[in-house]
Amino acid sequence: MQSLGASMSTDDEDGSPRTLKTVTVATQVIEVVRERGSVGVTELAEYLDLSKSTAYIHLKTLEENGFLVQRDGAYEIAFKFFVLGEYARNRSPLYQYGKPEVDELAEETGQYTHIVTEENGHGVNLYQVKGETSISDDYQSEKPQHRDHLHYTASGKAILAYLPRERVEEIVDSYGLPARTANTITDADELFAELEAIRERGYAYNDGEEIEGFRAIGAPIRNPKGEVLGSLSVSGPASFMRDERFHEELPERVTRAANVVEVSLNMNSHA
Amino acid sequence: MQSLGASMSTDDEDGSPRTLKTVTVATQVIEVVRERGSVGVTELAEYLDLSKSTAYIHLKTLEENGFLVQRDGAYEIAFKFFVLGEYARNRSPLYQYGKPEVDELAEETGQYTHIVTEENGHGVNLYQVKGETSISDDYQSEKPQHRDHLHYTASGKAILAYLPRERVEEIVDSYGLPARTANTITDADELFAELEAIRERGYAYNDGEEIEGFRAIGAPIRNPKGEVLGSLSVSGPASFMRDERFHEELPERVTRAANVVEVSLNMNSHA
Amino acid sequence: MQSLGASMSTDDEDGSPRTLKTVTVATQVIEVVRERGSVGVTELAEYLDLSKSTAYIHLKTLEENGFLVQRDGAYEIAFKFFVLGEYARNRSPLYQYGKPEVDELAEETGQYTHIVTEENGHGVNLYQVKGETSISDDYQSEKPQHRDHLHYTASGKAILAYLPRERVEEIVDSYGLPARTANTITDADELFAELEAIRERGYAYNDGEEIEGFRAIGAPIRNPKGEVLGSLSVSGPASFMRDERFHEELPERVTRAANVVEVSLNMNSHA
Amino acid sequence: MQSLGASMSTDDEDGSPRTLKTVTVATQVIEVVRERGSVGVTELAEYLDLSKSTAYIHLKTLEENGFLVQRDGAYEIAFKFFVLGEYARNRSPLYQYGKPEVDELAEETGQYTHIVTEENGHGVNLYQVKGETSISDDYQSEKPQHRDHLHYTASGKAILAYLPRERVEEIVDSYGLPARTANTITDADELFAELEAIRERGYAYNDGEEIEGFRAIGAPIRNPKGEVLGSLSVSGPASFMRDERFHEELPERVTRAANVVEVSLNMNSHA
Repeated sequence: MQSLGASMSTDDEDGSPRTLKTVTVATQVIEVVRERGSVGVTELAEYLDLSKSTAYIHLKTLEENGFLVQRDGAYEIAFKFFVLGEYARNRSPLYQYGKPEVDELAEETGQYTHIVTEENGHGVNLYQVKGETSISDDYQSEKPQHRDHLHYTASGKAILAYLPRERVEEIVDSYGLPARTANTITDADELFAELEAIRERGYAYNDGEEIEGFRAIGAPIRNPKGEVLGSLSVSGPASFMRDERFHEELPERVTRAANVVEVSLNMNSHA
Repeated sequence: MQSLGASMSTDDEDGSPRTLKTVTVATQVIEVVRERGSVGVTELAEYLDLSKSTAYIHLKTLEENGFLVQRDGAYEIAFKFFVLGEYARNRSPLYQYGKPEVDELAEETGQYTHIVTEENGHGVNLYQVKGETSISDDYQSEKPQHRDHLHYTASGKAILAYLPRERVEEIVDSYGLPARTANTITDADELFAELEAIRERGYAYNDGEEIEGFRAIGAPIRNPKGEVLGSLSVSGPASFMRDERFHEELPERVTRAANVVEVSLNMNSHA
Repeated sequence: MQSLGASMSTDDEDGSPRTLKTVTVATQVIEVVRERGSVGVTELAEYLDLSKSTAYIHLKTLEENGFLVQRDGAYEIAFKFFVLGEYARNRSPLYQYGKPEVDELAEETGQYTHIVTEENGHGVNLYQVKGETSISDDYQSEKPQHRDHLHYTASGKAILAYLPRERVEEIVDSYGLPARTANTITDADELFAELEAIRERGYAYNDGEEIEGFRAIGAPIRNPKGEVLGSLSVSGPASFMRDERFHEELPERVTRAANVVEVSLNMNSHA
Repeated sequence: MQSLGASMSTDDEDGSPRTLKTVTVATQVIEVVRERGSVGVTELAEYLDLSKSTAYIHLKTLEENGFLVQRDGAYEIAFKFFVLGEYARNRSPLYQYGKPEVDELAEETGQYTHIVTEENGHGVNLYQVKGETSISDDYQSEKPQHRDHLHYTASGKAILAYLPRERVEEIVDSYGLPARTANTITDADELFAELEAIRERGYAYNDGEEIEGFRAIGAPIRNPKGEVLGSLSVSGPASFMRDERFHEELPERVTRAANVVEVSLNMNSHA
């Protein structure tokens, strides 16, 4: 059972505090509530191996601070996260300048379009638009509520291609290269070769690497220093994305959109 | 300066712990970062009257737990909030069943339409659609990133009208009735009379009470027990919303949409 | 000649066989599979308190006879039911002559329309059409896969009103009058008064008796002998079905459709 | 625990029970009723070479278990099959994800479109839509009530092409390759050559093989493991389906629809 006593962890050589253990436990509590949808005190205590009183005080504290709400006697994730999340998104230049472009891209292609950025080695689907002929599916519409691996999406690979090699190695070490389909790249050397090819082309393909029969094209958004801020992508069934369309038209269209976003960002950074 | 020592507040009569003080301070840190956009250690220490080392360890802990990220040497709100917020929204039945209706409402009226719910006495703009003829404005597009007072919006008043009177009194006591325009209801008795009128009509008006020259109509969404889950609303410039349109057509359209959402919710609860 | 063996139950006074117990157990097996989606041998044995070998031989026999199929190691309901069900529906004159009318009714009203018949005291939703403005909901689209009580739907009450009183009493005795909403008729005397009113009007209302906020109008289909074969109905959110529309237009329209079906049936019975 | 009695057939070498003979006889009774529309006791006894008392007790048992109903003194197939069949269909992912696509396909082409799956070596027409310009005909509208041979329809051949060769041989051995028209493939070698051609093309043609002058195009739906779940098809008079339309447009349209269904299925399996 985790002890609540001292609020700082003291595992440094010199015994000096490094992080606030209580906050880390509170974070775990939030993650359990997110995983299970809603939890009660007993369930949480068992799940995290805490005493009931510790579980209770954590839930109560998170409720008082607005991160959890009680509904029908159990605790759920509060909309405070939504409000803070909207704030974070709205102040992101990638979102501000990317939104009009992916809106237009979806209208022109009729497919799903996305703005993706990287945080702590995972992809965050900051914004997506469902085109007219896109498949309606919970899998797609719920993408923004999941952090995704970066190595099996076009947007993710477009980002990885422009991160420093050591950072990519760090990400691969931390999260591995799990297979989603038979086409997913699961070998580090193969991934680095792919990232090299992406840099040469200027955009990334996903050819059934996330979902069988589903394709995507992603282009990076970089600042003048060459740092990658995220990527734009368009995704759809392979039958809509093949031949010239997959190999010429859409790459041309997506990289053009990415270029427009980059120019907007650069203009703004000089303003 | 706040002491960090004991992680629980002990201000109960009997000295028993009530909430985890460290978590409450961490929440304050998040709120400061949100208010200021990005903060450094020194700035935070001053702002919250903490020692620099305490400020530092809070920022570091929140970074390690994924709630803050460092950009250009300062701490910002991480997209983790966005990801958790999307999760919270997607699992809300009000959003699930309300979305198709407010999408349609926006297409038909050409105005902004909203799904609003209440959390801790404030309104949360869970979803909004910009209609074809809506004014493009940061004020509107950023609504979801703010918690709003309930007493000066149509959606907020539609909710207040169906909350228990004691709860409304509690909210008024906590947050007051600040004026936004000359039309805002700032007197509790007047508010209660208005809520009575809303219950009789079945929907709420906002006639320039939030923004001068801006109007809205909101209808409550209630479950079979009569509890209010939130509201739908349509909002636009007074010039688009007047005469028969404001007094008959739109109220009839908005209440019809609210009825459809209620029926979907009820069907689902019987499934 | 095939021998019947000893599989009959002999619980009659005079010891004469009444029904084939094995067939009744096989039916229970089918019902368990339907309830649970798919079952394995052990699960079934526990559920029905059978030995594993008996559970196994039942599953195998039902598989060989085409009523169950194995998928991923568990048994599921075979499409043989679907094929036989389509046959039963297609040969029903109520369906044959009712279908064009409820198709038209859905197109005109934009709402859900239904053909319902009674079997063993329950309602069967033989056919339904989703109108243009109908709510998309699994609850509605899955109606045909459920047998419904008759006392809380317009189509069900339209049927009950024209069944012999003793039959209605039998149904009430067997299945009771469970409440679905606060508006459901749960008292037998009240039900009989309602059925009397339906006979006077010639059609039945459902005013939020099945789903809160949802209404329907149903009219009986009878043969020349006065026996009720089923009913037609239209259903929608209360906001679409109110005032003159609910009290004059739709009843007029639904009874007219029912009359057309009856005339078609009668013409055919003379052919 | 329920006793199984002596109702098992004991025709195994070692005398061990294999299947429940009574259930098999009951299944034969159902099949006779289905074939003849409605039967009485005497007719059934003669037909299945049973004693009258055995015939009677089977009919009574099936009636009590809800599978048969009495109408005008004879036994008919009950709607219980319809209700269970709707259940089986609604829970089929092939139907869930296929329905929107064949709805759209029918709207675009104006022809009949179908979702077909295989069960026990036969085709089941799980869903079909009559397009605007389709011929109205009982033959078409009653397709779902018949199990079809697989070798003379486009949907059937699209399925056969992706079943393991041994399974196809088994089906051919069991049911033969009966001719429907002069164009039906009735030779096993010819069939295997055709299936090879289908795999190369990715879709199947029916060129008057089921009905003279009637054509169809069918595409398989497979899961990521390559297993075929069923097929989509469009069918119509040869005059509507010829030249470029038959050889390019429709194949391209049908395979695109099949790809979309596969992607939806795959997304769902990853969710």
